[in-house]
Amino acid sequence: MIIKTPTHYFLVFGASEGFTPLNAFDGALLSAGIGDTNLVKMSSIVPPHCKLVSPVPLPAGSLVPTAYASITSDVSGEIISSAVAVALPKEPHFPGLIMEYTARGTKAEIEERVRRMALEGMKLREREIKELKSIAVEHKVQKVGATLAAVVLWDREEIG
Amino acid sequence: MIIKTPTHYFLVFGASEGFTPLNAFDGALLSAGIGDTNLVKMSSIVPPHCKLVSPVPLPAGSLVPTAYASITSDVSGEIISSAVAVALPKEPHFPGLIMEYTARGTKAEIEERVRRMALEGMKLREREIKELKSIAVEHKVQKVGATLAAVVLWDREEIG
Amino acid sequence: MIIKTPTHYFLVFGASEGFTPLNAFDGALLSAGIGDTNLVKMSSIVPPHCKLVSPVPLPAGSLVPTAYASITSDVSGEIISSAVAVALPKEPHFPGLIMEYTARGTKAEIEERVRRMALEGMKLREREIKELKSIAVEHKVQKVGATLAAVVLWDREEIG
Repeated sequence: MIIKTPTHYFLVFGASEGFTPLNAFDGALLSAGIGDTNLVKMSSIVPPHCKLVSPVPLPAGSLVPTAYASITSDVSGEIISSAVAVALPKEPHFPGLIMEYTARGTKAEIEERVRRMALEGMKLREREIKELKSIAVEHKVQKVGATLAAVVLWDREEIG
Repeated sequence: MIIKTPTHYFLVFGASEGFTPLNAFDGALLSAGIGDTNLVKMSSIVPPHCKLVSPVPLPAGSLVPTAYASITSDVSGEIISSAVAVALPKEPHFPGLIMEYTARGTKAEIEERVRRMALEGMKLREREIKELKSIAVEHKVQKVGATLAAVVLWDREEIG
Repeated sequence: MIIKTPTHYFLVFGASEGFTPLNAFDGALLSAGIGDTNLVKMSSIVPPHCKLVSPVPLPAGSLVPTAYASITSDVSGEIISSAVAVALPKEPHFPGLIMEYTARGTKAEIEERVRRMALEGMKLREREIKELKSIAVEHKVQKVGATLAAVVLWDREEIG
């Protein structure tokens, strides 16, 4: 087997200023509590029976499959936001859907849109929704800023 | 070991309209039959002795290494296409090469270009080609459209 | 467990011309010695106790977690550069930080900037630095050129 199916997930967000766009992104990861891991970006499903947990500290440098939205900006005064939504189906043996959205705009605007995106994705799958979770973060750029919202997938054994 | 070497692969394509670019991409994944998996993008080799199979249903939410081309557009009436090509060497112990290309343009144009890209990549490696496979898809945008062509890598045990 | 924590790493760089931007990128990977692997991009930590080794040949087609900077250009005569820096902490049980930077500009400029980025990232973590490594490459574009600098993470068993 190459890579297994995750069994747990959690939601985090962060924002930061930084020396460069990548430093601001790094700061946003640190403020989200996942700055010392190796994120591997993926598109964007919650496996059936995958359980929501509170954010847990992950081993430093471990490879972590993550669905995330992130934006950087160097326009002073600009409001930037990132959001993720998770739509979970009524049928527990079906997978859930993650959507990500990030743009200039307020937290409320961006979060509303990502929630709508998740609803549309479940409608396309003809799956009834049991629950729709979302998180979002906004940041007013000083010099170079970043926001990040993420769904981190993880495995039972590692949480222990 | 961190991650092993895939043993099987298959080619898929899809196209869709959607509420947002990400929803259109999600719809293209669903129409390709891989919409309920977690794609991990990678660059772009078919391991030696890796076998082509017909598309198989993958476990929902599993992490799937995939080489893909995808494009979205919100320009009504625009033709967008995505294509992938796989060049396999005469020497079976050498790896094959995957190339991806996507742009505005017809399926024929985009597929011709990706095939040429794969030939050039094998020429650079000085490997004789046994076979050149490709798939492509085009879509005429209504409001927000996406196309996707992908080579999905997978492992023997999982296909079972 | 989904994916483990890497135990070894090495630094490589490359540059190439190519038929298309993706072919130039592919050529840069080949010149870096990692052109026949499947790179999975990740952000950007050296796990504690992860050991620097000389570049080793990796199995063809294997999935390889890699932090990298890459750029392509089709502007004839343009100088493009890519660089990565690795900042290692005095405390060996803390992780190190990888930064990537790529832009138009000389190798010296781009490498200086990526080193500064790594220093800033360690300052943000309030970690004293034992060592700062970096590599960089520049290329003068003829028709279509690419540069790449990468930190490849790997696992002890595979190097064996």
